[in-house]
Amino acid sequence: MVTTPKRKTYKLDALVAKFGGQLIGGQNVRVGRVATLESAGPGDLTFLAQPKYLSQLGCTRAAAVVLAPEARDSTQLPRIVTPNPYAYFAKVSEFFNPVLAPQAGIHGSAVVARSARIAKSASIGACTVIDSAVHVGEQAVVGPNCYLGERTSIGSGTRLHANVTIYHDCTIGRDCVLHAGAVIGADGFGLANEDGVWKKIPQVGGVKIGDNVEVGANTTIDRGALDDTVIEDGVKLDNQIQIGHNVRIGAHSAIAACVGIAGSTKIGSRCMLGGAAMIGGHITIASGTTVSGGSVIMKSIDKPGVYTGIYPVSAHQRWRKNAVHLRRLDELAARIDTIENEARKARGDKS
Amino acid sequence: MVTTPKRKTYKLDALVAKFGGQLIGGQNVRVGRVATLESAGPGDLTFLAQPKYLSQLGCTRAAAVVLAPEARDSTQLPRIVTPNPYAYFAKVSEFFNPVLAPQAGIHGSAVVARSARIAKSASIGACTVIDSAVHVGEQAVVGPNCYLGERTSIGSGTRLHANVTIYHDCTIGRDCVLHAGAVIGADGFGLANEDGVWKKIPQVGGVKIGDNVEVGANTTIDRGALDDTVIEDGVKLDNQIQIGHNVRIGAHSAIAACVGIAGSTKIGSRCMLGGAAMIGGHITIASGTTVSGGSVIMKSIDKPGVYTGIYPVSAHQRWRKNAVHLRRLDELAARIDTIENEARKARGDKS
Amino acid sequence: MVTTPKRKTYKLDALVAKFGGQLIGGQNVRVGRVATLESAGPGDLTFLAQPKYLSQLGCTRAAAVVLAPEARDSTQLPRIVTPNPYAYFAKVSEFFNPVLAPQAGIHGSAVVARSARIAKSASIGACTVIDSAVHVGEQAVVGPNCYLGERTSIGSGTRLHANVTIYHDCTIGRDCVLHAGAVIGADGFGLANEDGVWKKIPQVGGVKIGDNVEVGANTTIDRGALDDTVIEDGVKLDNQIQIGHNVRIGAHSAIAACVGIAGSTKIGSRCMLGGAAMIGGHITIASGTTVSGGSVIMKSIDKPGVYTGIYPVSAHQRWRKNAVHLRRLDELAARIDTIENEARKARGDKS
Repeated sequence: MVTTPKRKTYKLDALVAKFGGQLIGGQNVRVGRVATLESAGPGDLTFLAQPKYLSQLGCTRAAAVVLAPEARDSTQLPRIVTPNPYAYFAKVSEFFNPVLAPQAGIHGSAVVARSARIAKSASIGACTVIDSAVHVGEQAVVGPNCYLGERTSIGSGTRLHANVTIYHDCTIGRDCVLHAGAVIGADGFGLANEDGVWKKIPQVGGVKIGDNVEVGANTTIDRGALDDTVIEDGVKLDNQIQIGHNVRIGAHSAIAACVGIAGSTKIGSRCMLGGAAMIGGHITIASGTTVSGGSVIMKSIDKPGVYTGIYPVSAHQRWRKNAVHLRRLDELAARIDTIENEARKARGDKS
Repeated sequence: MVTTPKRKTYKLDALVAKFGGQLIGGQNVRVGRVATLESAGPGDLTFLAQPKYLSQLGCTRAAAVVLAPEARDSTQLPRIVTPNPYAYFAKVSEFFNPVLAPQAGIHGSAVVARSARIAKSASIGACTVIDSAVHVGEQAVVGPNCYLGERTSIGSGTRLHANVTIYHDCTIGRDCVLHAGAVIGADGFGLANEDGVWKKIPQVGGVKIGDNVEVGANTTIDRGALDDTVIEDGVKLDNQIQIGHNVRIGAHSAIAACVGIAGSTKIGSRCMLGGAAMIGGHITIASGTTVSGGSVIMKSIDKPGVYTGIYPVSAHQRWRKNAVHLRRLDELAARIDTIENEARKARGDKS
Repeated sequence: MVTTPKRKTYKLDALVAKFGGQLIGGQNVRVGRVATLESAGPGDLTFLAQPKYLSQLGCTRAAAVVLAPEARDSTQLPRIVTPNPYAYFAKVSEFFNPVLAPQAGIHGSAVVARSARIAKSASIGACTVIDSAVHVGEQAVVGPNCYLGERTSIGSGTRLHANVTIYHDCTIGRDCVLHAGAVIGADGFGLANEDGVWKKIPQVGGVKIGDNVEVGANTTIDRGALDDTVIEDGVKLDNQIQIGHNVRIGAHSAIAACVGIAGSTKIGSRCMLGGAAMIGGHITIASGTTVSGGSVIMKSIDKPGVYTGIYPVSAHQRWRKNAVHLRRLDELAARIDTIENEARKARGDKS
């Protein structure tokens, strides 16, 4: 499961033939590596995705650059012009850095139940434990020290890195990536209080993860209480995200690290949640919504847009002074009301 | 360690004989599964725990419903009336979905020190590593790929899911559940600064966890610096919670996901901390306190109640406008003072 | 990897000969354990690091106390006077509680690639999996159930606790400690959006960790997109910290639990980030900066100092009242402007 830089090189016109774009100059220039504007050297292809890095373009030592039509004249270097330089770069980078799958087969130290069905082309890592009636699809890779619970299904082409835990009765789609330490299908936090003591609600739903989903390191996705927790196709989850029971995340939403989503909340499709955003339970976020990092969302959002709730940072002493007034903002507002009313009276208004 | 829906069915009057409550209609109706109002079908028992779901009651296809006395006339379905429908439902669900323990015994691939004492009825999973002088009690289940450090003790009936790590000299009580990826007893964050360089303070305390405690996936509980970190009986911890060294959490407190509690803080009993609440170090939270999710608590709370500190979310542009003024709220307040003083002077007051 | 209290005892004058400080009284008093003021008993050495614990000094049952010159006359107990009692205490505690390394050698159940070079004096735990071309240095300890990816290097004297995952091509320096569940080198969260679908950017950089770094339990440090993610010497990271791709953390910075640092951000040296602080991407934090716990930093900090942004907590009802006004603070500010302008007009000012 290792990405090794290949030193094979390609002519720019061969890349354009494969990935599109318009080549300006340098037909015979060869590149074999992708790099940032700053760190690129001869033989490297770089890219300009945002105008703010334009100043670095002048100094780059790259052999060629991928850029947008607006920036085509910003350099004399050989260049590939394309409307979405970053996506173009992603494709070339993937081409230059193919993911190397480990050898197919089950490592001798893995412990696999007899009733598990492991595809011939799948790879099962050392010391991994696979329980009964599990299914692992073609070309799937399960890293070392993982655990797959009973009746779990891993789609073809999906890769689990080391130390991943999947509880029983969870389904992972095709071509997913689950990073190390991820836990799928632990019990949701369902408790009934009786006379001051918490009684656990059995969590008998599962987790269903679609195709092309990425799950970051140490991210946790709880199983449903009665129905399933659902992650739709193309969702991208960063590290240390917590997803409560019966949450549904719509297709192609991207969620940055440290986000928490409480139980039964529905996130629409193509949403973006910034890092450490916290989403309360039993609410709905409209498709196409962006939530700024660090914001705490406690009510449903019906209309897509960008939503923010972050306390602005100041030098500590200044923060202290302001916070005192925030604690009695209600009173400040009442004083303004009074001032206005008195001014009105003084003017003889009849309100 | 798998919960499998059993298709065995029970007559409603048999359930009432077992769990109490008043049966209205349907003595001979049989149910074998619990389900939500929305997803229930024939043969399912559902429940109404909150009035806000009353509207769903009319459409449910469930065979019978558990509800409170106030709601007894809201449906014509066979029903069980009980003062705490959610707790009742928890018990029936547990009865319908018994936790199936894996076979007793030590898996052949587990690595168990000779001096460890493992009860005959306990189950030790594949590739689990158990160090010297560990004790695992009767009917305890240790999942695959776990590690138990020296002199750790696991109480009877306690279950550790996969990939759990317990450091040396920690004690887990009876009938606890520890979910995958939990880490108990890692070093607390104790550092002394000498000439700009951090020197580690050895963390020589342990962790003591009481009975009936649940610890969520990837939750971490640090060992004490000198004395122990203590989690009392009946505490319920969700996923990705961080508990610092020498914290004490009182009995039957429930803490939602992503909460952090800094070192030496004492949380009383029967507290509830909402998701992602952050509790500073060296403070005390009174028993019975509720902290809203996302709030940052930096001072002790002496009086139980509900405490909140969340920045309200707005559309981004509006947030920007307001945040500008929050940064100079002190100045705004001073301007109000001036206005009031001048008005007073104008009126000829002698303050 | 176990710290066991040794019952061997030492005379106070022997400790002063070894660690410095001025001994007042008790030359022949022997101590063998360190303890807090509150829990210390006969035979224990305690310390007073902060004036706020002075009141406990009168009641301690310790045999002797380490304290600062200012407090030298606060007790009649035998005492060691030193300018930095906490650092002194750290050294004595380390002396009393030496870390016991497990036996050198590779456990029979570990799976180690033939091309890996493991130092003779290193210890590799049970069920640990080590991939090809890995290097583990002298006296290094790799706990049970770990995974080391291809070409990873672990410096001499470094200790990995159980269930740690290191992806391929990462470098860990000397004398580091990595706690259980830590994940080093998972893919950074790099995505390009094309027609509403996220395309993964291959993450081909690595992670470079310096010497004397501590990484807490379940902390994650992502590999770089093109260049490396870098953690400099002496950095101390608590539990459940998330560090994005291409972040650089300067030497001797200390970061408390639950902090998140987004991609490409540079944290200077000797910074302190409080628990659950969230640091946005592509920014720079000046060396020597302190960020208060729970603060969200979205802009670069050029000048060292203490920075804070925490919403003050109140009783819930009061918070509700205040939050209403915060949502329209812009409007409140405009009303104050109006009042001032009208007062000015009334006074006949010509502004």
